[in-house]
Amino acid sequence: MVPVPDLCVLGLGLIGGSLLRAASAAGWTVWGATASAEDAVAAAKDGYDVLADVDQALERAAQTDALIVLAAPLPAIDGLLRKVAAIAPTAKLTDVVSVKGPVEAAVTRLAPNTRYVGGHPMAGTSASGWVAGKADLFKNAAWVVAVEDETDIDVLGEVIGLALATGAHVVPASAAEHDSAVGRISHLPHILAAVLATVGADGGPLALALAAGSFTDGTRVAGTRPELVQAMCEGNRSALLDAVDDALGRLGAARGSLASTGGLAKTIEAGHAAKRALDEQKAAERTDVTIDLSSSGALEALRAVGARGGQVVGLDGVTVRARTS
Amino acid sequence: MVPVPDLCVLGLGLIGGSLLRAASAAGWTVWGATASAEDAVAAAKDGYDVLADVDQALERAAQTDALIVLAAPLPAIDGLLRKVAAIAPTAKLTDVVSVKGPVEAAVTRLAPNTRYVGGHPMAGTSASGWVAGKADLFKNAAWVVAVEDETDIDVLGEVIGLALATGAHVVPASAAEHDSAVGRISHLPHILAAVLATVGADGGPLALALAAGSFTDGTRVAGTRPELVQAMCEGNRSALLDAVDDALGRLGAARGSLASTGGLAKTIEAGHAAKRALDEQKAAERTDVTIDLSSSGALEALRAVGARGGQVVGLDGVTVRARTS
Repeated sequence: MVPVPDLCVLGLGLIGGSLLRAASAAGWTVWGATASAEDAVAAAKDGYDVLADVDQALERAAQTDALIVLAAPLPAIDGLLRKVAAIAPTAKLTDVVSVKGPVEAAVTRLAPNTRYVGGHPMAGTSASGWVAGKADLFKNAAWVVAVEDETDIDVLGEVIGLALATGAHVVPASAAEHDSAVGRISHLPHILAAVLATVGADGGPLALALAAGSFTDGTRVAGTRPELVQAMCEGNRSALLDAVDDALGRLGAARGSLASTGGLAKTIEAGHAAKRALDEQKAAERTDVTIDLSSSGALEALRAVGARGGQVVGLDGVTVRARTS
Repeated sequence: MVPVPDLCVLGLGLIGGSLLRAASAAGWTVWGATASAEDAVAAAKDGYDVLADVDQALERAAQTDALIVLAAPLPAIDGLLRKVAAIAPTAKLTDVVSVKGPVEAAVTRLAPNTRYVGGHPMAGTSASGWVAGKADLFKNAAWVVAVEDETDIDVLGEVIGLALATGAHVVPASAAEHDSAVGRISHLPHILAAVLATVGADGGPLALALAAGSFTDGTRVAGTRPELVQAMCEGNRSALLDAVDDALGRLGAARGSLASTGGLAKTIEAGHAAKRALDEQKAAERTDVTIDLSSSGALEALRAVGARGGQVVGLDGVTVRARTS
């Protein structure tokens, strides 16, 4: 169990291209393919094993029971899944898309016989293309691996092994838990930064001239390429709606309190306590725990590690080593 | 006109203490007083001219027609103004409070015969007390000086001269313009940071463990001491309400669009354009202009400099030197 599989990477942009490099550097047998001629040529020129098209890459994957990685943006996933279903219908499958529920649903709809375990390496998104990739992109990054009740343990072990091989640590969570969390800490910040930047600029040159650290910090990610932010946020529509509603509720409560009593203590103290919780979690002591993947209850134990803010840092045979507070 | 006056600083905390040091270093005749025994003793020990109490400091100010600086937080302003009205009722007066409309209103109510010109040096607020102060606190900071239609030109020149002597540049604006601007770029960021931190922490340890740059940037100022943030934001109640309403409107529009069409283009593109406007204004070429304070139209010309994102950088006799884009 949990041998190193062959790896087939579909999509050779920033994430897929970095993954091809990282797995290769870790000694894996890995090949890739992409619909982007530019990325394909660049990757081949750099000496990597690039097949002529996605079909050929999938045929080879079917022959060797390789682990297939969908390394394309969400809008391209359906097309890839149709090819997977046609050429390698029972393949071991993972992905690197920044939202997990919609990909899981697409797999169920279009390639239901694949052995799918979702993933999301949380590494750089501001540059793109093969040329922007690098073998150490995932070093020290969090790589969320989706753990559901019906998850195939063997494929789960292989996906965890792949993430660890790239230098990432693994955060186990269900797709729903993942999407809810990133809606709050990754997508909502972009919406609030856009709102703050706009309200500030509406104050005209005087307001912008007086802008100091609090405004600069709060609007920094509004400088990210809009099409990337849009794709990321819109892809997580349902969970992001929950996060936006929470923000609207809290901002509305602050508004009501300021208008009626003039007081903001509740809003500001809650924010300060939350910030302290973040800092304390970062500084918290960690305990090492091990989980036997072949044991019953392994999936629940993994999800519990993620839910407590912990991470998987090692895999020996079927034994996962995790650190949790 | 615009000779260097004597200076009387009431309050010797971070801002008042730094001002006493900076004016002293610039060669001004300056003394101070404070109700805080701790600050008074520390300042005297450091060799500065500290009088026994505020009454004595005001008596000396009345005798020498000194410029009096109210360097206390907003809740202490009324008490100081009553003393000013009793001991130095026609004094030249300025302040360093982070909100201008409420101070202006208090002066009109409690010390209507003073020659008042409001000010707001936008420098550090996270530490406090005499020990936290330093002579170069205002170096390169923006110091807003309130310019109203009825502003006394002589006192205006003295306040501008004081701000420039500390190494700050002066941003001229009416009290209402100032309060609206800081509501948007200084107070609203604190409210949004508090909301974001709280919604993130509501996602539990998993969400906090996945928090990366966008969340860290967006919540940084939620770490500021809550009582400082509260005093600052609550003091600017009316203008902050406008800014919060704008933010609620824009966040609500994003919510509606995400829920109905699933699209966020408008929100994200507006935020990106606003961020670009901020960056462009910072990088813009500046032109030097001069304004003769004794000319008619000087007050309007000064406010126009601020409204265009410009600043006053020099004062020679009655000639103000400004830089504007």
